[in-house]
Amino acid sequence: MAGNSFGNALVATTFGESHGAALGCVVDGCPAGVDLTVEHIQAQLDRRRPGQNRYQTQRQEGDRARLLSGVYQGRTLGTPIAVLVENTDAKSSDYKGLDDHYRPGHADYTWDQRFGRRAPRGGGRASARETVGRVAAGAIAEAVLAAWATRNHAEPLQIVAWVQQIGTAVAQGPAPAQILPGHTAGYAFDPLTLTREQVDATPLRCPDPQAHAAMQELLEQAQRERDSLGGVVRCAVRGLPAGWGEPVFDKLTGMLGHALLSLPAARGVQFGTGFAAAELRGTVHNDAFLPGFQFASNHHGGVLGGISTGAPLVVDVAFKPAATIPQPQQGGTRAGAVAERTVTGRHDPCVVPRAVPIVEAAVAFVLADALLAANFLPRET
Amino acid sequence: MAGNSFGNALVATTFGESHGAALGCVVDGCPAGVDLTVEHIQAQLDRRRPGQNRYQTQRQEGDRARLLSGVYQGRTLGTPIAVLVENTDAKSSDYKGLDDHYRPGHADYTWDQRFGRRAPRGGGRASARETVGRVAAGAIAEAVLAAWATRNHAEPLQIVAWVQQIGTAVAQGPAPAQILPGHTAGYAFDPLTLTREQVDATPLRCPDPQAHAAMQELLEQAQRERDSLGGVVRCAVRGLPAGWGEPVFDKLTGMLGHALLSLPAARGVQFGTGFAAAELRGTVHNDAFLPGFQFASNHHGGVLGGISTGAPLVVDVAFKPAATIPQPQQGGTRAGAVAERTVTGRHDPCVVPRAVPIVEAAVAFVLADALLAANFLPRET
Amino acid sequence: MAGNSFGNALVATTFGESHGAALGCVVDGCPAGVDLTVEHIQAQLDRRRPGQNRYQTQRQEGDRARLLSGVYQGRTLGTPIAVLVENTDAKSSDYKGLDDHYRPGHADYTWDQRFGRRAPRGGGRASARETVGRVAAGAIAEAVLAAWATRNHAEPLQIVAWVQQIGTAVAQGPAPAQILPGHTAGYAFDPLTLTREQVDATPLRCPDPQAHAAMQELLEQAQRERDSLGGVVRCAVRGLPAGWGEPVFDKLTGMLGHALLSLPAARGVQFGTGFAAAELRGTVHNDAFLPGFQFASNHHGGVLGGISTGAPLVVDVAFKPAATIPQPQQGGTRAGAVAERTVTGRHDPCVVPRAVPIVEAAVAFVLADALLAANFLPRET
Amino acid sequence: MAGNSFGNALVATTFGESHGAALGCVVDGCPAGVDLTVEHIQAQLDRRRPGQNRYQTQRQEGDRARLLSGVYQGRTLGTPIAVLVENTDAKSSDYKGLDDHYRPGHADYTWDQRFGRRAPRGGGRASARETVGRVAAGAIAEAVLAAWATRNHAEPLQIVAWVQQIGTAVAQGPAPAQILPGHTAGYAFDPLTLTREQVDATPLRCPDPQAHAAMQELLEQAQRERDSLGGVVRCAVRGLPAGWGEPVFDKLTGMLGHALLSLPAARGVQFGTGFAAAELRGTVHNDAFLPGFQFASNHHGGVLGGISTGAPLVVDVAFKPAATIPQPQQGGTRAGAVAERTVTGRHDPCVVPRAVPIVEAAVAFVLADALLAANFLPRET
Repeated sequence: MAGNSFGNALVATTFGESHGAALGCVVDGCPAGVDLTVEHIQAQLDRRRPGQNRYQTQRQEGDRARLLSGVYQGRTLGTPIAVLVENTDAKSSDYKGLDDHYRPGHADYTWDQRFGRRAPRGGGRASARETVGRVAAGAIAEAVLAAWATRNHAEPLQIVAWVQQIGTAVAQGPAPAQILPGHTAGYAFDPLTLTREQVDATPLRCPDPQAHAAMQELLEQAQRERDSLGGVVRCAVRGLPAGWGEPVFDKLTGMLGHALLSLPAARGVQFGTGFAAAELRGTVHNDAFLPGFQFASNHHGGVLGGISTGAPLVVDVAFKPAATIPQPQQGGTRAGAVAERTVTGRHDPCVVPRAVPIVEAAVAFVLADALLAANFLPRET
Repeated sequence: MAGNSFGNALVATTFGESHGAALGCVVDGCPAGVDLTVEHIQAQLDRRRPGQNRYQTQRQEGDRARLLSGVYQGRTLGTPIAVLVENTDAKSSDYKGLDDHYRPGHADYTWDQRFGRRAPRGGGRASARETVGRVAAGAIAEAVLAAWATRNHAEPLQIVAWVQQIGTAVAQGPAPAQILPGHTAGYAFDPLTLTREQVDATPLRCPDPQAHAAMQELLEQAQRERDSLGGVVRCAVRGLPAGWGEPVFDKLTGMLGHALLSLPAARGVQFGTGFAAAELRGTVHNDAFLPGFQFASNHHGGVLGGISTGAPLVVDVAFKPAATIPQPQQGGTRAGAVAERTVTGRHDPCVVPRAVPIVEAAVAFVLADALLAANFLPRET
Repeated sequence: MAGNSFGNALVATTFGESHGAALGCVVDGCPAGVDLTVEHIQAQLDRRRPGQNRYQTQRQEGDRARLLSGVYQGRTLGTPIAVLVENTDAKSSDYKGLDDHYRPGHADYTWDQRFGRRAPRGGGRASARETVGRVAAGAIAEAVLAAWATRNHAEPLQIVAWVQQIGTAVAQGPAPAQILPGHTAGYAFDPLTLTREQVDATPLRCPDPQAHAAMQELLEQAQRERDSLGGVVRCAVRGLPAGWGEPVFDKLTGMLGHALLSLPAARGVQFGTGFAAAELRGTVHNDAFLPGFQFASNHHGGVLGGISTGAPLVVDVAFKPAATIPQPQQGGTRAGAVAERTVTGRHDPCVVPRAVPIVEAAVAFVLADALLAANFLPRET
Repeated sequence: MAGNSFGNALVATTFGESHGAALGCVVDGCPAGVDLTVEHIQAQLDRRRPGQNRYQTQRQEGDRARLLSGVYQGRTLGTPIAVLVENTDAKSSDYKGLDDHYRPGHADYTWDQRFGRRAPRGGGRASARETVGRVAAGAIAEAVLAAWATRNHAEPLQIVAWVQQIGTAVAQGPAPAQILPGHTAGYAFDPLTLTREQVDATPLRCPDPQAHAAMQELLEQAQRERDSLGGVVRCAVRGLPAGWGEPVFDKLTGMLGHALLSLPAARGVQFGTGFAAAELRGTVHNDAFLPGFQFASNHHGGVLGGISTGAPLVVDVAFKPAATIPQPQQGGTRAGAVAERTVTGRHDPCVVPRAVPIVEAAVAFVLADALLAANFLPRET
């Protein structure tokens, strides 16, 4: 079976191993006439790229994208868009002897059980480098969303994610139910005006300065102790009109759950008030209508019955602490024995800041897919 | 676009509106030679059926399943299996005047924005009655999983879900990381020996008696105050071998996220330690190997890199409080005004107990799909 | 794997065995607001129904369709449309002892090799009764095409098929390259004005009276000699605008080839001049442009590069002689021996007349799918 | 919508425009442990490559394949296999001024109607260069089929196509119904022993020397008269076991029809006796059983009910005469006028010989997909 494609009307297929020749994606279903350049894709890949600061793996991949097809004179043709990123800084020597070793917290063992073999260098296709293709696909999806805004003379969608939590440090923005126009004042930051530039201006991509300082401290302590930390990325989408999404299986929640819970290291996803809704009563959780299809609260995080409500979409993704840590870990062997081993290689002590553009890409892709599935994109004129 | 089908190798398509002629599903991709009877399907539908106790809607649907195709002399043919459940007790008069009214917390408004029209009676296809088809599909999936066990002379998979939380009352079983052989003693209940019969023996499907009593109290209070409550269903799968699941987009986590977050009223999904993993360090969260591919803990909830580890799969689903409550609620009108209204109709004050077999069905379906996608099912001999 | 669904934007899933409880289909992806009634579906099923004249099987299935979902107050909801036809006149006794016998020209042997088991009565799912679901799906597709015409204030598409050949008798209409406005005069019939009513008015659905007489004679002779005959159905579509169809794999030719060559007994498909194009030169075969995007000839049968040209679509389907004939035939046994046997049961001596509405259904389905895939259908207003 | 992917269990997605940066494919679903090298893919691309003799376009593309992913140490990983071929000899100047000109027999006009824009140079994605990706995918499929033979200790499948007809010259091999062991002696060539090497040894890939000479003569005459010719490719598959293929929509006939009728310039497909079956009676066409599941004839071309019979698969594909011819042709303009124009550029006067490996690739892909869909490939040991 396949499993490397995602989407209904807009379909991304990704390929590539961490230490193979190249990674990339093919996006099929993009309508004709959408403005798209390689620079647009490169910009998102640069935000995902390793080696940007001292909290990240020092692997120095340029991650230069090539746009191989589907675009002519700066506009899409309606044909498949192939994006290629060659691997250049693959230090496979770091992975010597891993063929028969299973690292804890990694997919080594499960992959061997599934396929009988794997590319052991750098985790092969189980590496987070696999998300290069997802980020490129997300950039293409954003171009589709931009075309929608242009063709409808509407405000463009703003998809902005940030680090909401690392370890025990939590950003003090408004609760999801308050991420609504008129409800976000008086917090450490305002998700409804926050820009990607503002997020990127902080090393850990957390817009709450106080929480950011606490996160830095936790992270430095963890690094000193040769350990890693988990966290949560929150993503808010502004400008999403009501009526996007399919009912039943392909609800926005279902498709976003699929896209986000298939990200490397993702362990949970919740919408709006999410798990905390378990403690609420219906009288509270039912977002009351206000005139003009506005709402008094946003407990649903902008999705009702799987379809967008017009309120900001709010989704959280929990990530586990990075599995690779530079101290001895109790792994397994192909023969079923236990083997303690310190794995070298270049890894992030906390994947959460780099996950920010990856989460945005996943959200953008699901929304562009929903847009096209519902035939809401007017044809180019 | 479609959106009413789910699965890769095993594909379920569901159909039907709450107050239409019938609901049902067609399951394609089921191999030949699997033992399957309508009674097996009926048993699961009966567990989902409304009207079982005083905490549930008093709608009295018999929900009698008919097996229309794909089975001959008690065994599947390899052809599509169609299951039909006719609607009999549809009191559409309860929904008079709802054509232009949008109930808060319901999909009325978003559905109209998506499609321009809807079947207003009983929520139409946005009703939780849609899950009749999912439960029937899950029963078929369980028959596939049973065939796997038989043909491999293996222990059958045990997929058991229970109510883990209603309101602030939480069942005190072992934490997900402890749901491992040898770690579950000394708790209010043991998820590794728990049976569906034991779960069903309690009105709220919560195996912790103390928590159950607290839940009953909360629920009765909410009913008195004409309100509703949310909760969490936890599902554990025993006997799942290592190596099931596709990498990249169709990881078990991604597919389960898709299936579970597309359930009506679902607001969050987490695996193993889930959101709490954000606070952990890698040294703790990395489940250390023990000899013979065993693990010292189960923070990953039985899934690593999207593929099963052989440890029990543990997944949580958060459900919001039921949207329909028998008191005035501030809804909207098709014209964009606000309208207060008390919606009648028959609804559960808390959907969580009835969600238990629905969650099991979704999990069973994803696992049977993964089994077939990986070609792990031997042919009938 | 599945294999019982067809289509991209509009997806039909069919189910049912010849002598099982019921047959039917679920069509997903139909937009909201399309006028659809069960009578519309019944009308096409009636044209497919057996027992209409002495050249057809005397099995007396009423083939009454029930519309189970997806339609409310005469218009589609955008949700899956399920259609059910119960089997009533299944004389399974005719098939006693066929479990281990393989009839020549039937799928008995191949089916057993594929699945290891089968429903032997009436061919099970390999029976041509499987096309009940296809015809129902085609009727729904025609409703979508009608909505397109209404919403665009355009002339509705006319999809009309007829029997072009039975045995050596061939209808003398214009060659496909001449099926163009202004080129069809002077022939035995005019495919550009031909209606389904006119076709149905002849017992064998051949609009050329002289050829019809010859076909009747051939067929009666074959019946007398307890034999069967093959033939060709030709289908022409008028009013199909230019620009429908996907390039590359899902060309109109590819999708039609898939739909038509998967019909029971189909052995070949050709477009426009088809196989005879092998003998032509480019100067002849290249349909020259005339002003206003008209063409001087229609060798391409209305499809160029997989996309409609605006000229009538012309496609031929060859059907083999019916496999079941009331005389001893040399079949096989499950053990690999040869067994002569006269199979009883009720069958058409020539399937071609009944194939006419089935071919139309397949063509309608592919065109409606192409319409929706290209987002050419305006939303309901 | 998409439309650039094909297959169920094995899925090929192709990309690339004729004069863009590159062409290629991603094949998903290939099992792990299949022997695969870039040389194997290159060998098939070389057979498709232009410029091999004087009857072909003189465009000198090296068509060097790069294997970007999915293979490690000469064996597949179970991950997507990406193949890239860069365009090097794109003489776009030949296509100056074609933006607003529609060539007859080409997809220029229909493409503009579908998408509103296109890449005019070299036909863009409508060029036959698109088949580069298909041929690479076919080579991967053949590796899967080879793995099947190895793992089952069976004879490998032999998929051999040849030019059966160019213009009026027809190769005099046995009729399809005679392409059966013991029936092929005494003809100009024997399809059951014919090798690709023997086919390639002739300039026009026709194994009947007399017909080959006639084809050469016809082709030279056509070239002198600045014209082009159509033809027929026949493909026979030896060693295909009984039981491959899905019933209903995804019959081998349906899938092959889809793959072959979506090839550039394809106009018809038939199986076994094909269109000529219309003239036959059931007593003749029903291939009688012989002991040991052998057959007395092969009218069905190795497929019954969509599933392989064990007899050689025989399929014909009709190709139209090449649309580009070096003389003035009556095309259209974007404004709807008529414009006579002699299109330069480098093209084959007859595409049929180069279509031989393309047809083989399509057949190989459908068979490997059917193999995997039916779970007939044992896992690597």
